[in-house]
Amino acid sequence: MKFLLIQGANMEYLGTRQPELYGTTTAKELNSIVRRRARDLGIELEILYTNTEGEAVSAIYKGDRQGVDGVLFNPAGFLYAGHALRDCLRSIRAPAIEIHMTNIEKRGYSSITAEAVVGFIAGFGVDSYVLALEAMVSVLNSSSARSPS
Amino acid sequence: MKFLLIQGANMEYLGTRQPELYGTTTAKELNSIVRRRARDLGIELEILYTNTEGEAVSAIYKGDRQGVDGVLFNPAGFLYAGHALRDCLRSIRAPAIEIHMTNIEKRGYSSITAEAVVGFIAGFGVDSYVLALEAMVSVLNSSSARSPS
Amino acid sequence: MKFLLIQGANMEYLGTRQPELYGTTTAKELNSIVRRRARDLGIELEILYTNTEGEAVSAIYKGDRQGVDGVLFNPAGFLYAGHALRDCLRSIRAPAIEIHMTNIEKRGYSSITAEAVVGFIAGFGVDSYVLALEAMVSVLNSSSARSPS
Amino acid sequence: MKFLLIQGANMEYLGTRQPELYGTTTAKELNSIVRRRARDLGIELEILYTNTEGEAVSAIYKGDRQGVDGVLFNPAGFLYAGHALRDCLRSIRAPAIEIHMTNIEKRGYSSITAEAVVGFIAGFGVDSYVLALEAMVSVLNSSSARSPS
Amino acid sequence: MKFLLIQGANMEYLGTRQPELYGTTTAKELNSIVRRRARDLGIELEILYTNTEGEAVSAIYKGDRQGVDGVLFNPAGFLYAGHALRDCLRSIRAPAIEIHMTNIEKRGYSSITAEAVVGFIAGFGVDSYVLALEAMVSVLNSSSARSPS
Amino acid sequence: MKFLLIQGANMEYLGTRQPELYGTTTAKELNSIVRRRARDLGIELEILYTNTEGEAVSAIYKGDRQGVDGVLFNPAGFLYAGHALRDCLRSIRAPAIEIHMTNIEKRGYSSITAEAVVGFIAGFGVDSYVLALEAMVSVLNSSSARSPS
Amino acid sequence: MKFLLIQGANMEYLGTRQPELYGTTTAKELNSIVRRRARDLGIELEILYTNTEGEAVSAIYKGDRQGVDGVLFNPAGFLYAGHALRDCLRSIRAPAIEIHMTNIEKRGYSSITAEAVVGFIAGFGVDSYVLALEAMVSVLNSSSARSPS
Amino acid sequence: MKFLLIQGANMEYLGTRQPELYGTTTAKELNSIVRRRARDLGIELEILYTNTEGEAVSAIYKGDRQGVDGVLFNPAGFLYAGHALRDCLRSIRAPAIEIHMTNIEKRGYSSITAEAVVGFIAGFGVDSYVLALEAMVSVLNSSSARSPS
Amino acid sequence: MKFLLIQGANMEYLGTRQPELYGTTTAKELNSIVRRRARDLGIELEILYTNTEGEAVSAIYKGDRQGVDGVLFNPAGFLYAGHALRDCLRSIRAPAIEIHMTNIEKRGYSSITAEAVVGFIAGFGVDSYVLALEAMVSVLNSSSARSPS
Amino acid sequence: MKFLLIQGANMEYLGTRQPELYGTTTAKELNSIVRRRARDLGIELEILYTNTEGEAVSAIYKGDRQGVDGVLFNPAGFLYAGHALRDCLRSIRAPAIEIHMTNIEKRGYSSITAEAVVGFIAGFGVDSYVLALEAMVSVLNSSSARSPS
Amino acid sequence: MKFLLIQGANMEYLGTRQPELYGTTTAKELNSIVRRRARDLGIELEILYTNTEGEAVSAIYKGDRQGVDGVLFNPAGFLYAGHALRDCLRSIRAPAIEIHMTNIEKRGYSSITAEAVVGFIAGFGVDSYVLALEAMVSVLNSSSARSPS
Amino acid sequence: MKFLLIQGANMEYLGTRQPELYGTTTAKELNSIVRRRARDLGIELEILYTNTEGEAVSAIYKGDRQGVDGVLFNPAGFLYAGHALRDCLRSIRAPAIEIHMTNIEKRGYSSITAEAVVGFIAGFGVDSYVLALEAMVSVLNSSSARSPS
Repeated sequence: MKFLLIQGANMEYLGTRQPELYGTTTAKELNSIVRRRARDLGIELEILYTNTEGEAVSAIYKGDRQGVDGVLFNPAGFLYAGHALRDCLRSIRAPAIEIHMTNIEKRGYSSITAEAVVGFIAGFGVDSYVLALEAMVSVLNSSSARSPS
Repeated sequence: MKFLLIQGANMEYLGTRQPELYGTTTAKELNSIVRRRARDLGIELEILYTNTEGEAVSAIYKGDRQGVDGVLFNPAGFLYAGHALRDCLRSIRAPAIEIHMTNIEKRGYSSITAEAVVGFIAGFGVDSYVLALEAMVSVLNSSSARSPS
Repeated sequence: MKFLLIQGANMEYLGTRQPELYGTTTAKELNSIVRRRARDLGIELEILYTNTEGEAVSAIYKGDRQGVDGVLFNPAGFLYAGHALRDCLRSIRAPAIEIHMTNIEKRGYSSITAEAVVGFIAGFGVDSYVLALEAMVSVLNSSSARSPS
Repeated sequence: MKFLLIQGANMEYLGTRQPELYGTTTAKELNSIVRRRARDLGIELEILYTNTEGEAVSAIYKGDRQGVDGVLFNPAGFLYAGHALRDCLRSIRAPAIEIHMTNIEKRGYSSITAEAVVGFIAGFGVDSYVLALEAMVSVLNSSSARSPS
Repeated sequence: MKFLLIQGANMEYLGTRQPELYGTTTAKELNSIVRRRARDLGIELEILYTNTEGEAVSAIYKGDRQGVDGVLFNPAGFLYAGHALRDCLRSIRAPAIEIHMTNIEKRGYSSITAEAVVGFIAGFGVDSYVLALEAMVSVLNSSSARSPS
Repeated sequence: MKFLLIQGANMEYLGTRQPELYGTTTAKELNSIVRRRARDLGIELEILYTNTEGEAVSAIYKGDRQGVDGVLFNPAGFLYAGHALRDCLRSIRAPAIEIHMTNIEKRGYSSITAEAVVGFIAGFGVDSYVLALEAMVSVLNSSSARSPS
Repeated sequence: MKFLLIQGANMEYLGTRQPELYGTTTAKELNSIVRRRARDLGIELEILYTNTEGEAVSAIYKGDRQGVDGVLFNPAGFLYAGHALRDCLRSIRAPAIEIHMTNIEKRGYSSITAEAVVGFIAGFGVDSYVLALEAMVSVLNSSSARSPS
Repeated sequence: MKFLLIQGANMEYLGTRQPELYGTTTAKELNSIVRRRARDLGIELEILYTNTEGEAVSAIYKGDRQGVDGVLFNPAGFLYAGHALRDCLRSIRAPAIEIHMTNIEKRGYSSITAEAVVGFIAGFGVDSYVLALEAMVSVLNSSSARSPS
Repeated sequence: MKFLLIQGANMEYLGTRQPELYGTTTAKELNSIVRRRARDLGIELEILYTNTEGEAVSAIYKGDRQGVDGVLFNPAGFLYAGHALRDCLRSIRAPAIEIHMTNIEKRGYSSITAEAVVGFIAGFGVDSYVLALEAMVSVLNSSSARSPS
Repeated sequence: MKFLLIQGANMEYLGTRQPELYGTTTAKELNSIVRRRARDLGIELEILYTNTEGEAVSAIYKGDRQGVDGVLFNPAGFLYAGHALRDCLRSIRAPAIEIHMTNIEKRGYSSITAEAVVGFIAGFGVDSYVLALEAMVSVLNSSSARSPS
Repeated sequence: MKFLLIQGANMEYLGTRQPELYGTTTAKELNSIVRRRARDLGIELEILYTNTEGEAVSAIYKGDRQGVDGVLFNPAGFLYAGHALRDCLRSIRAPAIEIHMTNIEKRGYSSITAEAVVGFIAGFGVDSYVLALEAMVSVLNSSSARSPS
Repeated sequence: MKFLLIQGANMEYLGTRQPELYGTTTAKELNSIVRRRARDLGIELEILYTNTEGEAVSAIYKGDRQGVDGVLFNPAGFLYAGHALRDCLRSIRAPAIEIHMTNIEKRGYSSITAEAVVGFIAGFGVDSYVLALEAMVSVLNSSSARSPS
């Protein structure tokens, strides 16, 4: 199985940026943790960090054309106005799961992209990524989970 | 570890109720799946189904007094106006995780209780419950995950 | 035919409560009038007064399991926030008719449960109940009325 | 007793128009059913179809001057902006009952004229008209029902 | 000078309609009072009562083509949704004054057509019409009053 | 008869201030015009210009205690937030008429004080004041005009 | 092919009315331009000007009964509150195209009827009508364009 | 004199729950303080803690039937959606006073039940209850205070 | 102890103004009642009536500089837009209590200043002032009540 | 004449993406159809597909500097938040026409960029592009159509 | 050059009032700093502190009549409802600059007066005043900056 | 000291774009003016023009990593939806100042990024940039200005 993980605007500064919210794990360390767990689950994982929504959209279309099985993404800075990203997620064949390190609802935000995903995991810091990897495997394996809308 | 799982209004009719949304797994079968996974993780699990928000609130206070380590709940019918439940979750010592079988955002709803929980998992059908069990273990084990707000 | 009639929050005080709005017929007298008309139409009628929405929900599920043919209800105090009741009505097999003694629109209210019922009768005082009994018989007898959504 | 029945904008196309909502009974057939029931109840019934709100208003004033006992009407296309119709209903001596073939609340609409009527019946297809005839007779016969506001 | 006075929806019932608001002067008597004052001021006055907004619009265009000097109107039932009337008033050459017998602001309404008139007089019962006649004469006589927008 | 005329915030700059809206008549000239017409009608007139809402309120109470028969006022700068002025107008014995030189509705404003007055005249420049003097005389002379609410 | 063109409220004053917006082409001249282009395309064209929404609705139903192939209309003054017109367009068999001479979005308006049409053309003055004729021919000829919703 | 004191959802956890807001006085200690002051004032006091709104409603009706002289209540968790409680308070004979330990306005909340009470006391911690006891005595003793609405 | 009592806009007319709401006790009589109770409690009391918000603000700053222990105030006409008063209350050292003679929530108002006060007492007529004096003494005496925010 | 056609976010997936809405014509095939029609009309046409709004903005400025005569664009994914694109269209010399394949109003969307264009064409699938080419030619040829705002 | 500096409601308490927001510089010290810088720039500076909006309005008109070249002001407590102040600023000849010590946007406020000023400086504490003096000189010296609106 | 100046979407067209708002100074000339003033103040200044928000974000992170002392930016086209930019400004070490050539409040806009900056300067045309340079120096030099939030 092949997954694509998109890290949205401002994620490149993880570890430095508002550590009281996002912890001190850097983007680099996060990548290691996620890649290790992917390897254990037999998943080929591509990771992209971008501050430009259009680049995320282009990368997802490219992935979808190349047969990616699932898209994981943390919209981060695209949370508020990511309408093009949302339409893109509606257009592709592969299912998507939205990830947040913090419980965004608790912080008073709601996500524009959430309505275009299969599932939503928020609030568990770095573990949100690991739970999302497992959830995507479960979505793909379970045909009953996949078919209902 | 001891967890309390609350199933909110209308969950008793699971399997019969709008199966195109919630699948055909009955409440009884869901209980077996969740209990089995809890046993594997060494968790003692109490499950309560109720159609009355006040009963859920009373049960959570009782559980908190008796030393429950974590509260898992699917607000279901309390999703729209569960203000008392939200205040209750803010008042207890134990952390809580909110669970939904469907991606409620996709269906146009947002949760009133979400702002009082540590994390939020939605969209994976019965697997949402299993992922929530694992996430709660991770929240409790990881002191770094527990302390940040 | 077997019908269930639910009287929502504050209906127990009928006759005493705001008589300029609801008249001086007491709950007891209303029961007699409705039961008499039900008997004439050959309907077995169960009546429940409750101030707790969750009890109404539980009673409707119990009725639905026992094969009730139609649910009549006056949401009364559940008018404003009866989301769980609405989801319950959407989940059952039996059709429901909503009843109000007064023309609630004239008084500036609108009902949250109305979108989950087959029909709506308001403004005829005690006669609203009698018209609702007749309307439910007509709904159940006429297959053309039952099948359209 | 003499009643006036107003059929608002678009009702002339009944039977052809959105039959999945309004059924296949034509305006002509509806007239026969309603006239027959009126005859049984000893009611003289005038029926007017109009696509222009001002014509409905003029007809109601004319009827009120000529001593009509009750006004029945389906606002249909005047549902959304029938303010003049509403003010007219407030100005006449005769009581009015509003009729809808479908449960408009379920379809997400609310009626502007509803606040000016004695009662409201919705959701029973052609039977809504028959129930309204009976309800108007009951309103006129019962002085207790007539006097409260 | 030639003026056109339009009486909007429901004005034909003046004297009978909600006399606690509009008094007991009938439409006929109002016409006499206004015509007498017009005669004193040397004004030729045409009066039209209509329940249909489109008829008011057509009459105003006809009047404007025939060289009417001023349009006086009580929107009455067109108060709430008279957008076509407002656009018509914006399109004609002659100035218009809006008249209300009651202080509509006190009753919680605001007028859609008011933004297309030169002036606005409300709250003086039948005298509102007489003041409006005088105000229109003053508007037409005073070039300084006419030119500012 | 004794009238009090209040000129609200910014009226002292009349003639200099936005002449394209308010014309070039100065406050001094306006006073002469209004006083002359008052003299003709046998009215004793007191005029107060103030930029402070509390001063207007105090002056109106003082006038009411001294037996003023009518209050005329242009709220001007108190248009937007004159809640205390509105409550004051509701508390006094004497009737009040609100005056505007421009058609404020045309300019997109609505008045907070309007709901506490007998009548409302707007859009006739300096003539608005003269019409208001006449309207107040008519209100006081006509008992039928005074008593309706 | 037979088309019906409806010109809504205030269109009769084209050429005189706000020429800075709508140009100086009169209604009569517009008719010639549109009829000429229709003749070139082999279309039989009926044109109706009306200030009353109900007349537009009646004409469209009459046209639909007589087999009109397409309805073109400029809602003009019905833009703001044309709910009955919208419901009528939903009820007929023939497709409709909405036309505006100006770009209404630029002027801050949105159309209530737009949701009931196949397509929408705005901003090209008199050419909007000509483009709409061509677009309707294309809609009717192309079955692929007609079937998608 | 006999008073009923209702403690709404989450009050049972007083002393443990958010002590920075509600202090460390427990529900038990609060009861002693209030009962002692009631005894001094010669009041018989019944206290009910409940997390279910319907139970509060039922208890108030029962108290009203048994001749309770005044109802004191802290809506607590029913603050946000207590519509049935509000309707209940409107229906009973006895006056009610609403109590809050904190100044809820300062915290950004407003109460749905407040419109159905005689008076409102907020912000004095445990003293809010004592002041409410005294205020109720004053309301009942003073007929001038009782009769105005 | 030294208290300052501010009576906001329109309070000078107490007794005359809307007696059905505020009773017939005049401002003078109210002063006597409040001063007597203050004397009994050993409080030095300064009372200021003003219709101008800025005067209230200046008086509160002056009082705060001179060591006033507590500020009591009835915002009255400043209820709706008293933002400067609110900021002033936030800036001073002394605690403030807001007083209303009527239950303003019942009348549909909410107070802008309420968020800046320690406590809030409404609905007990003249007794509201007496209860507020007692509540302020209790706030000042109880250090536990004073320190929490 | 030289035109620039911008295809906004997600248009690159045309033919694959939600074919029930956008049909099965691919982006490549669309290009051929549009280029062919442009050639017939003697127009030099540049086409740009981009998922990044800033690239669209840069391309339009570049085009405007190089003397493009008209800009055609389908905002697609920029529909919702394309404020920078809108400001760009307001800044350039060349007129712009907005294109949509579907009737976006019917689907419940409204366009942010629409207020900055000369005209708007929606709902004719691939033909929307062809009609837009013709409309732009007409805009550029007709000086009377170009000058009005 | 002659400038007028208005310090709005609550500014007199600078240094004492919420020092965590506004620092410990007192009003007196601020005056010295601003006067010194004005002297260096050759500006005659009048400073007025007032808690009453009407006094600020009167002072600005008086200044404008006496030939003041620029108005600097910190609306402070007039920020929220200073409509009369805004209209005053629109009416005078002299340009105005609005000053805030804190970045009010960051604190969630927006200013009603801002739309009537030439420029806006916020967030630099006492330096905001000094920057505003320099900016006003620059506005007055540069005719190109002065003429555009 | 090293500053980074970001010019947001559409700034590249300065001088050509809406000169009645932004003047005729071109981007190139603006750069010279700002660089000259920076040189005088001993500041090393990097300037970036971009139409893509993500590029601005990336540049600011790069600058922050390389030790930039202050960020100056004109959000321009990012004003409306620049959420990612706002989050970026919150994440960096260096302070930021927001610049606008016009008084955006006067034009009815408010800035999303303003809440993440130290200060805000608007309305002085090209001088806004020069004042911002000076203000940033003042922010950095004055530790008292830097530390408070």
